Amino acid sequence: MQKPANARGTRDFGPTEMAKRNYVFDIIKTHFQGFGFQTIETPAIENLSTLTGKYGEEGDQLLFKIVNSGDYLSKVSASDIEAGSKSFTSKISEKGLRYDLTVPFARFVAMNRNDLAFPFRRYQIQPVWRADRPQRGRYREFYQCDADIIGSDSLVNEAELIALFQSIFNSLKLRVNLFINSRKILAGIVDSLGESARFVAFAVALDKLDKIGWENVAKELIQNGFTEDKTEAIKDLVLFEGSNEEKIAKLTAFFDTNVTGLQGLAEIKEVLSLSETNGFSSDNLVFDYKLARGLSYYTGLIYEGKAVDLPFGSIVGGGRYDDLTSSFGLPNMSGVGISFGIERILDVMEELKLFPEIATSASAILFTYFDEEGRKASLVMANELRKAGIPAEVYPDIAKIKKSFEFADKKKIAYVAVIGESELKEGKANVKNMKNGEQNLLSISEMTALLKA
Amino acid sequence: MQKPANARGTRDFGPTEMAKRNYVFDIIKTHFQGFGFQTIETPAIENLSTLTGKYGEEGDQLLFKIVNSGDYLSKVSASDIEAGSKSFTSKISEKGLRYDLTVPFARFVAMNRNDLAFPFRRYQIQPVWRADRPQRGRYREFYQCDADIIGSDSLVNEAELIALFQSIFNSLKLRVNLFINSRKILAGIVDSLGESARFVAFAVALDKLDKIGWENVAKELIQNGFTEDKTEAIKDLVLFEGSNEEKIAKLTAFFDTNVTGLQGLAEIKEVLSLSETNGFSSDNLVFDYKLARGLSYYTGLIYEGKAVDLPFGSIVGGGRYDDLTSSFGLPNMSGVGISFGIERILDVMEELKLFPEIATSASAILFTYFDEEGRKASLVMANELRKAGIPAEVYPDIAKIKKSFEFADKKKIAYVAVIGESELKEGKANVKNMKNGEQNLLSISEMTALLKA
Repeated sequence: MQKPANARGTRDFGPTEMAKRNYVFDIIKTHFQGFGFQTIETPAIENLSTLTGKYGEEGDQLLFKIVNSGDYLSKVSASDIEAGSKSFTSKISEKGLRYDLTVPFARFVAMNRNDLAFPFRRYQIQPVWRADRPQRGRYREFYQCDADIIGSDSLVNEAELIALFQSIFNSLKLRVNLFINSRKILAGIVDSLGESARFVAFAVALDKLDKIGWENVAKELIQNGFTEDKTEAIKDLVLFEGSNEEKIAKLTAFFDTNVTGLQGLAEIKEVLSLSETNGFSSDNLVFDYKLARGLSYYTGLIYEGKAVDLPFGSIVGGGRYDDLTSSFGLPNMSGVGISFGIERILDVMEELKLFPEIATSASAILFTYFDEEGRKASLVMANELRKAGIPAEVYPDIAKIKKSFEFADKKKIAYVAVIGESELKEGKANVKNMKNGEQNLLSISEMTALLKA
Repeated sequence: MQKPANARGTRDFGPTEMAKRNYVFDIIKTHFQGFGFQTIETPAIENLSTLTGKYGEEGDQLLFKIVNSGDYLSKVSASDIEAGSKSFTSKISEKGLRYDLTVPFARFVAMNRNDLAFPFRRYQIQPVWRADRPQRGRYREFYQCDADIIGSDSLVNEAELIALFQSIFNSLKLRVNLFINSRKILAGIVDSLGESARFVAFAVALDKLDKIGWENVAKELIQNGFTEDKTEAIKDLVLFEGSNEEKIAKLTAFFDTNVTGLQGLAEIKEVLSLSETNGFSSDNLVFDYKLARGLSYYTGLIYEGKAVDLPFGSIVGGGRYDDLTSSFGLPNMSGVGISFGIERILDVMEELKLFPEIATSASAILFTYFDEEGRKASLVMANELRKAGIPAEVYPDIAKIKKSFEFADKKKIAYVAVIGESELKEGKANVKNMKNGEQNLLSISEMTALLKA
């Protein structure tokens, strides 16, 4: 006998959790499909040559690696052990588990370039694995939920993803603000300061403003080689608050003739304008030129959504990339993607009590009976209801009426149909409403009408 | 640059394959739910202590094992390498990938015994991984699709699973015969011969009758210690052909007073009788007392379904087990399960051309335009249609009418809406039917009516 347990950082999902998860997944899928996105699936297992080097040094360490099959040690000698874990792993493992959905998608696009119609709109909802230290809200196995449009550099795609974002959260009844920026605007600001080479340090520091305040951002900038004068020169810009239009005006003046910055602004203006025609209001679509994310791969517009009613951090994000597939031999494929932080969205919805009362019982009615004849009639009636699209089940034991009612109660089945001698004679069942206790002698067609309602 | 490739034995599923897979999955799920089954999900990663020893020696070898995180080699010395791969693996790997859905289900039931309402009807559709040698139709990553009723020994459950089986294949329009037997009948036959100890050898040999013929089965029995007399004594029984009733009569006479055999027969009779009330005909529910499967875990009824129109072997199977959860500390949980060989079912349906024309385009209509104004109108109209539940997409580039039509053609989008100057004035779009070339100037409500139809 062994005490059963989950592997650390992994979870089971029982019927109740699954009903909630599927409620959210189904809404998201419906909208993905409504926007013309097609789904693909890629395998959990990828060659390490596909995964390694794509997620930085830290990502490489967090990849789950699979021990080679067969007598894999025959190629290993004692000296390999001395070389350390990293070198040793490369000798005993050639495969790893999917770390995100983006790299497998890039591999898929590169391999299927001749069969796909571009711009290709794909969505993908699958688990990924990371050998992270597990903690509250962070798991080693969790779902990602991505939609990308690849093979077009038109800003219409950004506008489409923003409309998709909006329609999904409307359906979930979850209030989310979307913050947008362009990498080109961040680049324009450092360009204007004559500090193009310090782009990353600048963006990283600026992104922390809400958390650490201007004094500390300024300190960090100076530590990273910005002069006090230059730091002071952007203080006013950084601390500026206003509407999207006011921010655009402020930056237009700041950029003066800086081409990169002005191009970024033009893109922001176009996307805001296209989103207005999409019915998006500037209340919840916020131009935030301090936003930085995915600096190592995003090249154009970036965006990030946060729940209005909870301080939960980012629950959705994305941006434009110009170079997703070139490491797989397919250059010049511009694309734009959005990734829904599905596990966090589920947590937020739970906390805000946004799940409707979801039927998890699976069955609408349970049949119970006193004898063999009643059992046969129960099977027949259950199958009739199923044919009419009504989920039904038959309690397995004869003359266990009390137990069957307790079972229905625990499984939250709304109706119990009892078939005794008199019901058999009439070809009906005595149907009890488990909520209000009401009982009625009903025929199959009457049950169908009741349960379809 | 690296040449992109899938890991050996794994597959990507593009939009067309996914549409077919989801067509089958959705039908199966609908029926599972119609029978009151609730879904659960368990993680891909399990502790090796959960998996090892559950699938026999061969299964242990086919488990994908995951290299421990961190500096896992610090606990390993050179002498461990000499001890060989098997012993070494136990030092560097504590986790493995799910090998089937049954063992994780048993772990789940044992861990959640106090929260579940028994009999618990669960279904589970998830991938599993086996380090098998890949070959045509055999993959290292593939889906399993199981439904089980656990916590009841009533034969009603067997009848319910048979009805479930029937309703699923009816909906798939796939003709499948179901063969049933009971382990008790096989045991009864060897008991009657006074050869109870040779049960497994007997069942394994008998199961091969169709493939190798009676002469070779007899040879194998004799090799395994059956006398020629005893082998001869069952020849007539083994070669007997007849209806379910005739087989039952034949066995009743053969068993005489053998308790186990007669009990098995009684169970078969009851399940056949319950299935008749379920509308199952004896044409496609065949009592086959030579059937043997899962001898190491099934304890009662066993069954196996085969496509009528293709010699494809078993595509669905299952049976009753009395001891699924005892290795996790929960004894006496009788259950019965059915497992749909989903990858084989997909292959059979492909070969028999049973897939309906499935919409894989995701979009019903594509919008294209000549200028900025047309683009904005396209976004607005597409969103209107989406709100009405009609999938729509907007071509990203201005004045690329020819390219957009080629795109619609390749993506099999049925309608293309062109918005030019005159359409803009009227607030309509020129909608072309891509199949017959017909064009009409339509308003949003007219488009909705057309595309909803």
